[in-house]
Amino acid sequence: MGLTLAEKIIKEHLVTGEMKAGSEVGIRIDQTLTQDSTGTMAYLQFEAMGVDKVRTKRSVAYIDHNMLQSGPENADDHLYIQTVAKKHGIYFSKPGNGICHQVHLERFSVPGDTLLGSDSHTPTGGGMGMLAIGAGGLDVAVAMAGGEYNIPMPKIVNVELRGKLKSFTAAKDIILEVLKHFTVKGGVNKIFEYTGDGVAHLSVPERGTITNMGAELGATTSIFPSDERTLEFLKAQGREKDYRELKADEDAVYSEKLVIDLDTLEPNIALPHSPDAVVPVSTVRGKKLTQVAIGSCTNSSYVDLMKVASILDGKTVHEDVSLVVSPGSKQVLSMLAQNGALAKIIGAGARILESGCGPCIGMGQAPSNDGVSLRTFNRNFKGRCGTESADVYLASPEVAAYSAVAGFIAGPEDFDMNVDLDIEMPKLFLVNDNMVVKPAEDGSAVEVKRGPNIKPFPKNTKMKDEVSGKALIKVMDDVTTDHIMPSNASLLPYRSNVPYLSEFCLTPLDKDFPRNAKENGGGFIVAGKNYGQGSSREHAALAPLYLGIKGVIAKSFARIHKANLINNGILPVTFKDENDYDSIDKNDVLEIGGLLENITTGTLTVNNVTKGTSFEVSVALSEREAEVMAAGGLLNLMSLKNK
Amino acid sequence: MGLTLAEKIIKEHLVTGEMKAGSEVGIRIDQTLTQDSTGTMAYLQFEAMGVDKVRTKRSVAYIDHNMLQSGPENADDHLYIQTVAKKHGIYFSKPGNGICHQVHLERFSVPGDTLLGSDSHTPTGGGMGMLAIGAGGLDVAVAMAGGEYNIPMPKIVNVELRGKLKSFTAAKDIILEVLKHFTVKGGVNKIFEYTGDGVAHLSVPERGTITNMGAELGATTSIFPSDERTLEFLKAQGREKDYRELKADEDAVYSEKLVIDLDTLEPNIALPHSPDAVVPVSTVRGKKLTQVAIGSCTNSSYVDLMKVASILDGKTVHEDVSLVVSPGSKQVLSMLAQNGALAKIIGAGARILESGCGPCIGMGQAPSNDGVSLRTFNRNFKGRCGTESADVYLASPEVAAYSAVAGFIAGPEDFDMNVDLDIEMPKLFLVNDNMVVKPAEDGSAVEVKRGPNIKPFPKNTKMKDEVSGKALIKVMDDVTTDHIMPSNASLLPYRSNVPYLSEFCLTPLDKDFPRNAKENGGGFIVAGKNYGQGSSREHAALAPLYLGIKGVIAKSFARIHKANLINNGILPVTFKDENDYDSIDKNDVLEIGGLLENITTGTLTVNNVTKGTSFEVSVALSEREAEVMAAGGLLNLMSLKNK
Repeated sequence: MGLTLAEKIIKEHLVTGEMKAGSEVGIRIDQTLTQDSTGTMAYLQFEAMGVDKVRTKRSVAYIDHNMLQSGPENADDHLYIQTVAKKHGIYFSKPGNGICHQVHLERFSVPGDTLLGSDSHTPTGGGMGMLAIGAGGLDVAVAMAGGEYNIPMPKIVNVELRGKLKSFTAAKDIILEVLKHFTVKGGVNKIFEYTGDGVAHLSVPERGTITNMGAELGATTSIFPSDERTLEFLKAQGREKDYRELKADEDAVYSEKLVIDLDTLEPNIALPHSPDAVVPVSTVRGKKLTQVAIGSCTNSSYVDLMKVASILDGKTVHEDVSLVVSPGSKQVLSMLAQNGALAKIIGAGARILESGCGPCIGMGQAPSNDGVSLRTFNRNFKGRCGTESADVYLASPEVAAYSAVAGFIAGPEDFDMNVDLDIEMPKLFLVNDNMVVKPAEDGSAVEVKRGPNIKPFPKNTKMKDEVSGKALIKVMDDVTTDHIMPSNASLLPYRSNVPYLSEFCLTPLDKDFPRNAKENGGGFIVAGKNYGQGSSREHAALAPLYLGIKGVIAKSFARIHKANLINNGILPVTFKDENDYDSIDKNDVLEIGGLLENITTGTLTVNNVTKGTSFEVSVALSEREAEVMAAGGLLNLMSLKNK
Repeated sequence: MGLTLAEKIIKEHLVTGEMKAGSEVGIRIDQTLTQDSTGTMAYLQFEAMGVDKVRTKRSVAYIDHNMLQSGPENADDHLYIQTVAKKHGIYFSKPGNGICHQVHLERFSVPGDTLLGSDSHTPTGGGMGMLAIGAGGLDVAVAMAGGEYNIPMPKIVNVELRGKLKSFTAAKDIILEVLKHFTVKGGVNKIFEYTGDGVAHLSVPERGTITNMGAELGATTSIFPSDERTLEFLKAQGREKDYRELKADEDAVYSEKLVIDLDTLEPNIALPHSPDAVVPVSTVRGKKLTQVAIGSCTNSSYVDLMKVASILDGKTVHEDVSLVVSPGSKQVLSMLAQNGALAKIIGAGARILESGCGPCIGMGQAPSNDGVSLRTFNRNFKGRCGTESADVYLASPEVAAYSAVAGFIAGPEDFDMNVDLDIEMPKLFLVNDNMVVKPAEDGSAVEVKRGPNIKPFPKNTKMKDEVSGKALIKVMDDVTTDHIMPSNASLLPYRSNVPYLSEFCLTPLDKDFPRNAKENGGGFIVAGKNYGQGSSREHAALAPLYLGIKGVIAKSFARIHKANLINNGILPVTFKDENDYDSIDKNDVLEIGGLLENITTGTLTVNNVTKGTSFEVSVALSEREAEVMAAGGLLNLMSLKNK
């Protein structure tokens, strides 16, 4: 039986376990990446492991999140990351060099390698034929220390692309189509593998758009084959030597299949407030806009912005619209500045933001109250933009550029078919890595600089046989890590300060949660389906840990968040019968006993002391995970092992 | 007897009073400008006057301060300003179009016109031969409504420039030299008029650098003649028709004179934490830097950044330095993007920020704790950068660019004399005003949009015969408006919300001041010399008013702040004998009686009830000012007059 491409790469990197869907596998990690909002914590954890030098083939620390720098906290974090990176063999990408995923795709991604990144959009690397997975900072720290990365062996889904996109449809429309089909819950424990004759018409950055936003499916990752187009891209980046042809076997077996006909695909748009609320753009044509934002790790590549420049050339952004453009990397920005495209974009009246995540993560450019913003980003969760009352739509750069000029959501009837959107990929990108600082040959003399905002992270204690406490909060389906640990412009600078951040934990759903949790000495979170979707944010586990949360009882979990809970020794269990969710009220006292014995058997009993009832929950932990839980978290386990 | 240029323009615009130094004159205002952080309040005040359409020749509303937009407040303010401008005949410069002073110089400044701006750096227009004065928002609102602007007739100081700058010295070095000579207190109630053969070698933007930073002298304004270089600049901006030759009479009489020999001038630098702590850059050469910031209304013109591009071309910013560049306007940015200079700047590893005030006003790019930042800006007051522990130096773009590469403060010995810094002014600037929204022909149909953060401003009540209260705080010399009403990245978004802002009033000097003031039902501020220097910030009067402050007893006042106090009905008095300052302790109860009778006589008696002592203070109010005080502020007076 043939293998899928994902299976081939997993097989090459398999350290422990069996490649059987659902069974846990441990894989060797070739590369890691961090960004600054998760990176500080990851490096603190890495330091706690006492390893001198990273054991990966390549580890890169990026600064792309906290670039507004409204207070000294950010620059302090940057300095910490820069010095800790230099000391321990990690490449450091300075602020301004670009968004981690875009830069990594350009400069460091290698087909067939594994990449673990402390950012949920790490799967962008799948556009290069990497197995690129987003994870919590602790997992990345472990990988840097040479440890394996463990996941349940995913099911492999095949998305077959047939034909060729019309000039005004885009890679974004493909992934929005996939999201419409599978929804934000449809990808959990799955890898999406793209095949078909349509693949050959997509450049590496276009593939990156698709694999990037595969994160919104809740997928483990997404991957494209490595082919002629991959070689072209690597050549143009001066990295031909990194090329390796990779594809699935002809007789590979997939668990599911979706076929998308690119010839007939129409421009799509995701409605507020979910990336899977996808409809053809024509159905909302005419909606008035106050803001258009182009950029983010999903859509800020050279070709994306060249198309935008072509559309905007000689035109003027509508007077009621603020158009902001954040180029994905220094390379992209330099090239646009050199070839005149940037002048066209500015000429039309766009505002040029730094090469960074910017408004996509709510770092600036919050729309006005009741504002309507069309963005080329990957997420439009309510309030993520910084304005609770704003409506955010997601679409391609082409739709965004036309809409900025029109002043409303533009449909195909508003497009100027004379504009040439057939942008050629450059034969040679402008390569200048002078914003990447190399690690020290000998790091022993490098002094790590720690600003006053960098606080020790919370650590759990060894698991006890019984946990009990109140149901401190009961939340609905699809709670995101943005709900659990909000990450707006005023909180993002405090990622190194869990005590401060925990004051805001789950407050979008219950403003008294932190106080309530503290007063009760911790307790449980009761949740619906897909709990913890969205960003990979480890702080969504660290803040609850700091507040004394002992376990989360949910209908189901998002993959990365569940791993983060386990890594921090917080028990994640799922209802055997989802109806039992209804039997719990807030403030009910719950007890779960027999943990030491039953944590690997798969079933635990929850006693509702208040109601005098009980029900069963599943603990779908692997042996390794059970070991982590028992130790009170991965860092404790690593410390035990290193003793 | 001949007239100085300033006197000529004042004479042309004189409405009331006599042109006798110290005596109050009222002048007609041709143009106004506002920025967004003072503008919201100015337009609220303008609306309160009930005038349909501005009565100036040209009024422009700029957005350049609050451009990070971390929450909806900023975009709400922008929308309010955009709609109120459209309704009332005001041009609106969209965010991204540039810094008010740079754009106004390029597109709207007219030699010989008067310009009143709600920003202390409005004197930039003096580079064009305008009489350009910074004032509080209320004064600007009055001017928009057709009212005169009143000031004590300033003394006219002559700065004679002889010879020609060396290629690596700059306009910045000239104004730093002037600051070294006169200090931040030396310009109060003075106009600095530049003459001499050296003037002909300075372009309009270079002149703007000098007149801009004349604000740091505490001067009323600074002015250059309008000559061939002015005509060249206007021609290149397509505004030849606005030209008019202007200069002082040969036999003009000045109150003071400073001669600067440009041939021998060396690069200067202002040390932390004052723009007048000026030394030759060579004396601090070698000081290690963590940040270099190029831009601000002082130094972000086309030629400034072209020089920076030449210096950075092919080089790399030092790995320990974060170099940020904020171009002054869309025009500047477009031209650099078109001619390849921007690509050179980016190529060296600079971060490109939006065309706006940015880090100069603490909106982003706060250095790390204990960071050392070299900036081309105009102010380096402690903490203004967003980091209390940071050291900020001020120097020319040339010094800044060389220093960014070196990693330390570069002296002339570090300059590459092969770099050609002889940048020609363009024969034709790239003119595209598509980010300036024209006012409606008929504004009656325009709906003004008010976000929820826009709160009514506080109003005073009619002056009583006696005021009494505690000395709530006693502060030192040179207290800035940054001390009185801090304006960091987290507070700037709340300029439309005085109740919220007042919670931070004077807190850099006494964190309990707002609570203390409220609990005591208001009282007095006791201050040293030059109280209220720095930004024109009307909020430094509005917040004290909201907190019940009845008067400020100081050794001396900065001009704009004193006017703001009077405009809001807060009594500004000065010690007749400065030694009496020492007789007051915090919390002493003070009484000032006989106001109604004596407010114009010039002398009042302060009883220190606690100490049982008394002393005399001066009230240097003109009759007009006394009338404003008596009415409880200018807005009350305008309302009375309109009844």
